[in-house]
Amino acid sequence: MVGGGQGAFIGAVHRIAARLDDCYELVAGALSADPARAHASAAELHIAPDRSYADFQAMAHAEAARPDGIDVVAIVTPNHLHAAPAIAFLQAGIHVICDKPLTSTMADAAALEAVVRGSDRVFGLTHNYTGYPLVRQAREMVAAGVLGEIRVVQVEYPQDWLTTRLEETGQKQAAWRTDPARSGAGGCVGDIGTHAFNLAEFVTGLAVEQVAAELTTFVPGRALDDNVQMLLRFAGGARGALWSSQVAPGNENGLRLRVYGTLGGLEWAQENPNVLTHAPFGAPPQLIRRAGAGSSAVAGHASRIPAGHPEGYLEGFAQLYRDMAAQITAHMAGREPDPACLLVPGIEAGMRGMRFITAAVASSAANAAWTAL
Amino acid sequence: MVGGGQGAFIGAVHRIAARLDDCYELVAGALSADPARAHASAAELHIAPDRSYADFQAMAHAEAARPDGIDVVAIVTPNHLHAAPAIAFLQAGIHVICDKPLTSTMADAAALEAVVRGSDRVFGLTHNYTGYPLVRQAREMVAAGVLGEIRVVQVEYPQDWLTTRLEETGQKQAAWRTDPARSGAGGCVGDIGTHAFNLAEFVTGLAVEQVAAELTTFVPGRALDDNVQMLLRFAGGARGALWSSQVAPGNENGLRLRVYGTLGGLEWAQENPNVLTHAPFGAPPQLIRRAGAGSSAVAGHASRIPAGHPEGYLEGFAQLYRDMAAQITAHMAGREPDPACLLVPGIEAGMRGMRFITAAVASSAANAAWTAL
Amino acid sequence: MVGGGQGAFIGAVHRIAARLDDCYELVAGALSADPARAHASAAELHIAPDRSYADFQAMAHAEAARPDGIDVVAIVTPNHLHAAPAIAFLQAGIHVICDKPLTSTMADAAALEAVVRGSDRVFGLTHNYTGYPLVRQAREMVAAGVLGEIRVVQVEYPQDWLTTRLEETGQKQAAWRTDPARSGAGGCVGDIGTHAFNLAEFVTGLAVEQVAAELTTFVPGRALDDNVQMLLRFAGGARGALWSSQVAPGNENGLRLRVYGTLGGLEWAQENPNVLTHAPFGAPPQLIRRAGAGSSAVAGHASRIPAGHPEGYLEGFAQLYRDMAAQITAHMAGREPDPACLLVPGIEAGMRGMRFITAAVASSAANAAWTAL
Amino acid sequence: MVGGGQGAFIGAVHRIAARLDDCYELVAGALSADPARAHASAAELHIAPDRSYADFQAMAHAEAARPDGIDVVAIVTPNHLHAAPAIAFLQAGIHVICDKPLTSTMADAAALEAVVRGSDRVFGLTHNYTGYPLVRQAREMVAAGVLGEIRVVQVEYPQDWLTTRLEETGQKQAAWRTDPARSGAGGCVGDIGTHAFNLAEFVTGLAVEQVAAELTTFVPGRALDDNVQMLLRFAGGARGALWSSQVAPGNENGLRLRVYGTLGGLEWAQENPNVLTHAPFGAPPQLIRRAGAGSSAVAGHASRIPAGHPEGYLEGFAQLYRDMAAQITAHMAGREPDPACLLVPGIEAGMRGMRFITAAVASSAANAAWTAL
Repeated sequence: MVGGGQGAFIGAVHRIAARLDDCYELVAGALSADPARAHASAAELHIAPDRSYADFQAMAHAEAARPDGIDVVAIVTPNHLHAAPAIAFLQAGIHVICDKPLTSTMADAAALEAVVRGSDRVFGLTHNYTGYPLVRQAREMVAAGVLGEIRVVQVEYPQDWLTTRLEETGQKQAAWRTDPARSGAGGCVGDIGTHAFNLAEFVTGLAVEQVAAELTTFVPGRALDDNVQMLLRFAGGARGALWSSQVAPGNENGLRLRVYGTLGGLEWAQENPNVLTHAPFGAPPQLIRRAGAGSSAVAGHASRIPAGHPEGYLEGFAQLYRDMAAQITAHMAGREPDPACLLVPGIEAGMRGMRFITAAVASSAANAAWTAL
Repeated sequence: MVGGGQGAFIGAVHRIAARLDDCYELVAGALSADPARAHASAAELHIAPDRSYADFQAMAHAEAARPDGIDVVAIVTPNHLHAAPAIAFLQAGIHVICDKPLTSTMADAAALEAVVRGSDRVFGLTHNYTGYPLVRQAREMVAAGVLGEIRVVQVEYPQDWLTTRLEETGQKQAAWRTDPARSGAGGCVGDIGTHAFNLAEFVTGLAVEQVAAELTTFVPGRALDDNVQMLLRFAGGARGALWSSQVAPGNENGLRLRVYGTLGGLEWAQENPNVLTHAPFGAPPQLIRRAGAGSSAVAGHASRIPAGHPEGYLEGFAQLYRDMAAQITAHMAGREPDPACLLVPGIEAGMRGMRFITAAVASSAANAAWTAL
Repeated sequence: MVGGGQGAFIGAVHRIAARLDDCYELVAGALSADPARAHASAAELHIAPDRSYADFQAMAHAEAARPDGIDVVAIVTPNHLHAAPAIAFLQAGIHVICDKPLTSTMADAAALEAVVRGSDRVFGLTHNYTGYPLVRQAREMVAAGVLGEIRVVQVEYPQDWLTTRLEETGQKQAAWRTDPARSGAGGCVGDIGTHAFNLAEFVTGLAVEQVAAELTTFVPGRALDDNVQMLLRFAGGARGALWSSQVAPGNENGLRLRVYGTLGGLEWAQENPNVLTHAPFGAPPQLIRRAGAGSSAVAGHASRIPAGHPEGYLEGFAQLYRDMAAQITAHMAGREPDPACLLVPGIEAGMRGMRFITAAVASSAANAAWTAL
Repeated sequence: MVGGGQGAFIGAVHRIAARLDDCYELVAGALSADPARAHASAAELHIAPDRSYADFQAMAHAEAARPDGIDVVAIVTPNHLHAAPAIAFLQAGIHVICDKPLTSTMADAAALEAVVRGSDRVFGLTHNYTGYPLVRQAREMVAAGVLGEIRVVQVEYPQDWLTTRLEETGQKQAAWRTDPARSGAGGCVGDIGTHAFNLAEFVTGLAVEQVAAELTTFVPGRALDDNVQMLLRFAGGARGALWSSQVAPGNENGLRLRVYGTLGGLEWAQENPNVLTHAPFGAPPQLIRRAGAGSSAVAGHASRIPAGHPEGYLEGFAQLYRDMAAQITAHMAGREPDPACLLVPGIEAGMRGMRFITAAVASSAANAAWTAL
């Protein structure tokens, strides 16, 4: 693991996700840019001292050289520190699981893309909401034509945690997420707008071609946007809107997708992820519940326990780890992975996300002019 | 009543609304442009034959001349037939309750506005969702500063009844609502987009200054838009988005408003109108229920029965009639009306709605360029 | 109307219900036992002074003697004043709409039953929840075998308005409802337990044969039960439980029914009455919405406006009035009424309710021993 | 681990729960009564062959004798196989985590109780719903008097998976759960009724003193009850009702608790466990969300990730493992455990559950006579 030392948030989530299905063992890390914190963190996590590294370069070299070196690394640093370690590990022949968004700049993204495409190692990006069973089923239903031709896509991701200037209080998560040097040009749009965008493209299978975006910074003194509204034009003619916000009191992680086609509609919301509402046009809406009646094999693949016992965020996140393990195991064995494991977003989704952020920022700067991705 | 003969929809709603609180008696009408239908309809409604008129002009003249003539007329015709009768009755000294939107063209709207402003008669526009008790309470809470400074407004009104080309089947409601000659330049945007717009302005007390709109016609052969997405800029800096659709399967009358400010958020949805969610920032969201704890006097004024016994669409509609009756009674008595009765939308809201439709259509024609109202 | 003068609650509800569908005109009343209040109330309601009576006997005689006498009377007094006026009007040849429960004692109930059965006039009891469209559809679905053989029935009606000793504050509704002399032997069980019981029998079409009941009075000094839990045995072997409470904070009028059979389940809740959830065993639950897809003709008969525009308590109540009007009109015309109008509860349901109260009180007194109705 | 071999359900849940917070390593097992299955299962789970045992006695002896022997064992067998291994491991000085209910007979339960009480080892019972953060907060709120004096407790746990005679199809879970020899005298009442009972006592802190129960077997040929309704009398005068069912179509794991006192009410439902509704009497209901505003330190102790990212069944289950680990670690270190870790149900809760099953079965056999626990 790179990043994820004491005081970090997403690193602990990755570790639980890795552990949940018993496919990984954490044995090495460069857990912090601060060496003392790195080693203290490693000790807490039972990483042997000789495998706690001061920096990712050292780790990549040393682990690649060990006969018992790591097979895969998880990169859980702030956005501006994704590209360099990912490149280093891939070049050392080590598979990579990287937090989203891909990087903080298009230049970094392009460099990383080149390396990924030139490598035969597996590269996975933790757009974790794609790990939810019913999100995958929604994708499958759209692909199977259950909704007919898609017309309308409404997606949103409101939060409220940055309603005040939290970054001034020393809160570490708020600090880097509102700092262009570490987050990139997008604030809210990069942090959670990308999740909404990714979910919309993942489920519909349609590419957003253009956005007309209004990025706003409501909290005085904040350096990046904290609220985003935009219109979307999809390939094939579907129309959509996206809203993400960090200043909408009462909302925690209100990611929600609605898709409407000629034959029906679908609705899914992250805060109660075990239900997918399917409304065939002209018939009563149906509540498809994870692992329950109407739940498909694709959803079952991403599920662990019976219907009515809720799975949540950690299980969805773990699903990406489980699928990545299956991909890596197949790779190491020289065989084709089970197709069900291939839904983990990779470099393509990562580049789409970067183009989305870039286009949204550019559109907003141009008074919400339509801007191509 | 003008319009509302056999086969009409909204006329019957107006009649129930008028009757519910026992403030009106229906005694005269020009119920249909088809004289036979007009008289047959009148007979069904126990209107005396000599007060069933072949056209609104005749009715306005005759009723104004009778000692027992009507005090107020309800105009429930399609949009293109609002202005002329409204003008005729006002000029005959008769108060007017008019269905929304105000008219089908800006020219008609301007003519009507001039007459209303030059008249001392009461003119009410049935933007009926403003009659719901908790909508009024939401407005009061915003005005009182409970949410602080407003930042974000999300409003939507999805339906699905025009998912197919219903207007080709002879369905009367669909036929005129998709016909530019009778509806005006806006389809979905005029029919229900205006409701969403009106609700947003009514509750926030903020004027939309500019829209960037994308109007789409998804059903082949349809002459007007059936789906609308737009960005909103409010006076004072709030930002919003509006979505209305007639092609979103699973949605019936999904009008829903969310407002977020520096101190809290509010959410209200028409399909379960007896609940208003108020989320003070940093505290658990609260469920304010009509006539229950936390429900204000303003809501109580618009309510009839105790909490937990749902009131619905007809009661909200009736509230406008009840308040109009109070206004007219005060007018006839030469006294000031109770301020609680003055929340009925009038010519100002009607003109706002017309400018909204006009700006949205123009913006969409200009590739979603920001367009001032 | 008998009862319903100033300060009353349910009288005003009956009047709105009667008015809503334009089938009734209020022309006479004995509105209060206090003559001054009776006449003042009558004047407010535009009842001619000569048809405002000091007591129901006078009213029954006088109205029966008038050529333009009333066709039907609504009795909206407290429970102990139902039987005598109902008998008087029936004997005077006037149809009767009576509030529930039937009476306050079994003796009164038996006397009234005898008169009703010996009369050819229509007698309706306003168990108003049976007027909701989807309650009627639920009944129809059960009768049609959609749920298979019924096994389990869970019904509840919690409120919270009597959590404190409200009857001591002068609140009129609380005062008579907690007074055995006016309510009868049942407090909560009579006031709202009967509604729950009636709903369960109405929808399932099954008779409760035995109850094992625990009636509790939680508020010190209160003379009647304010919380009721009981087990139910239905004819044919179904088992159930009923809970009603007036001391459950957070509940307003939480009437809710769940029915389960060999083939599926149904759920309906009064506070959002426009949705009926149907779960066929082994398939996703479906949301049947009033007037929407899956809504039946039976529900349509009890509905006024399109799906997604909520109807509520007053519309459900009005449905009983509308159906009673259809029955009375048919009776006066000497023809058979439309079967769809015959779902209004009558003397049979009233007697069932009385037996239910009696059995529940007796069971509770016998330490929850099973007691036959 | 004892039990949990191939084909088992709850064993895998225990393993994920143990792994999730990284406090346990699985190193030994007697995973099946069938030796071949035991060893195959062990191999799959990376248990060394010499620590895969043919029976629990051998395992207890051998592990107790090893210097690196296990500290704690998880017993995940059917009910009739809980007592003997639990006793064996405790007597071998090994801490025990045991699935619920405690045993299949009162005799076994008494024997186990004696051993637990005579031992200084930690004994935990996985009434897993007590691990949910907001269940613990509900308990804390009641204990702190937030609801005032408790009056009414409504608890239910409906399922539908045994609506048909699934046990005849070879489904292993259904087979043992409907077999008195393996489950004990209670079917539905033992399997899930105990969860509901445990939850009610855990949250309210009140003991059920008497039950009046109706146990029913609806599916022909089934040997145990599949639906349970009962009245509850709590110490101190609170009254309640409990319903659990395995034949209620549309219900998956519908565990739901409502508690009402003189000052307010609480509601929690397992299928969306991240919300606790608190209704102070006379104020709007509040939605307390896990890790959100209003969520307490007690809930925080049982939580891993921020509000709005749902935690579910596995996290709740894992909480018991995490707390047991803390207890065991403290025990091994000879110090007092953090009181926050002591909420794991133990022998006392286990005995309460056994008395509950016994009393319910006896009451039902006595025609629902009140029966003391």
